[in-house]
Amino acid sequence: MAVGRDQIITLAIQHLNEDPTASMAQLAEATGVSRATLHRYFAGKEELLVVLGSRALDGWERVQRQAAIEEAAASADPARITTALHELLTGLVNDVQEHGFALTEHVMTKLPGLQERADELEEREIAFYLAAQRAGVLRPDLPVRWISNTVYGLLVAVRESLRRGDVARRDIERTLLETFLRGTS
Amino acid sequence: MAVGRDQIITLAIQHLNEDPTASMAQLAEATGVSRATLHRYFAGKEELLVVLGSRALDGWERVQRQAAIEEAAASADPARITTALHELLTGLVNDVQEHGFALTEHVMTKLPGLQERADELEEREIAFYLAAQRAGVLRPDLPVRWISNTVYGLLVAVRESLRRGDVARRDIERTLLETFLRGTS
Repeated sequence: MAVGRDQIITLAIQHLNEDPTASMAQLAEATGVSRATLHRYFAGKEELLVVLGSRALDGWERVQRQAAIEEAAASADPARITTALHELLTGLVNDVQEHGFALTEHVMTKLPGLQERADELEEREIAFYLAAQRAGVLRPDLPVRWISNTVYGLLVAVRESLRRGDVARRDIERTLLETFLRGTS
Repeated sequence: MAVGRDQIITLAIQHLNEDPTASMAQLAEATGVSRATLHRYFAGKEELLVVLGSRALDGWERVQRQAAIEEAAASADPARITTALHELLTGLVNDVQEHGFALTEHVMTKLPGLQERADELEEREIAFYLAAQRAGVLRPDLPVRWISNTVYGLLVAVRESLRRGDVARRDIERTLLETFLRGTS
C-alpha cells in the first residue's frame, strides 16, 4: 500500500517524539518510504518541520478554543476561569503526547511564520492567566509571563515523564494540575 | 590577542544560550576566531558539544555537592533536607544561566558518556527527593521521578524567562522556589 503524505506526517511526528534528532534518511526508514518519496513531499527537514510545526500550533489553538479561555477571561467569573484553566491544561497535556517534540525544537523558532503565530497564541494565553490572577484563581504575586513559562516547562516535564515511563498515562493530568496549582511541598 | 581554547568555550556557550541552532561558522564568528582555528580545537560541532556538555555536567555535580544533598538525605533530618533543597534549587538556577542551552540540546543525549553521567547525577538527585518525601519536606503523593522532571521543566522555564526578560534576575530564585513548593493558586 502506498504511504500518503498525511500518513508520513503522522509517522514522522511519532518518530521525532522518540528521537528529535532523526535525519531525513532515518525518517524515511521510520515512515516506510524511500528517501526519494520523502523528498518528493518535503524538500528537506526544514520544510517538513514547517508542516509539523504548523500542525502543533493548530493543536494548541484548538485547545485554547475548546477551553474557551477568551470567553472565560472576558467573564471575569472565578468559577468559569477555573473550569477553563483545567480544560486548557488537560488539553495541552493531551496535545503534548501528539506534538511533544515541537516543544523544544529550536529550529522551528527560525522558520517563517511559526514564531509569529506561536507568539500570538502565547499572548492570548497570557491574557487568560492575567484574568485568572485578577479573579483570584491564580496568585497575583507571580509575574504572569512566569506563569505562562511555568506551564510550558511543566509540559516539557510531562513529555519527558511519559517518554521515559516515569508517570502512568492515566495519572499525568491530575499530577500536572496538582503540581501547577499546589506545588510539591 | 590570540583567543585560547577556554575562552572559545566560554564564548561558544554564551552564543549557544542565545541561539542553540548556531552553526560552527556562526560560532567561529561569535567567538572571534577563524573557522580554521575553531576546527583546530574542535573537529566539528559534535566534538564541541561533548566538551560543553561535560562542563554542564561538571556544574550540575558541583551544585549537588555544594548543597550536600547526599549528606542531607542520609541524615533524614527535615531541617537539613529543607536547607539542602533550597541550596540545590538556587545552585541549579545559577547554573542554568551558564549552561542553559544544554537543558534541551537533544544531540547531547547521543554523545558518548554524557547520557550515562547525566543519568547518574539524576539518580543521585532522585534519591534526595525521595528522602525529602520521607522526611515530610515534599509531598509523598507525587511520583518521585515526576518531582525530578518538574525541577527540570521549571529550569527550562527559568532559562526562557531570563532569555526573554520575563522575570527580573534578582527575583528568579524566589519565584522558582515559590512555584515549585507552593504552586500558582
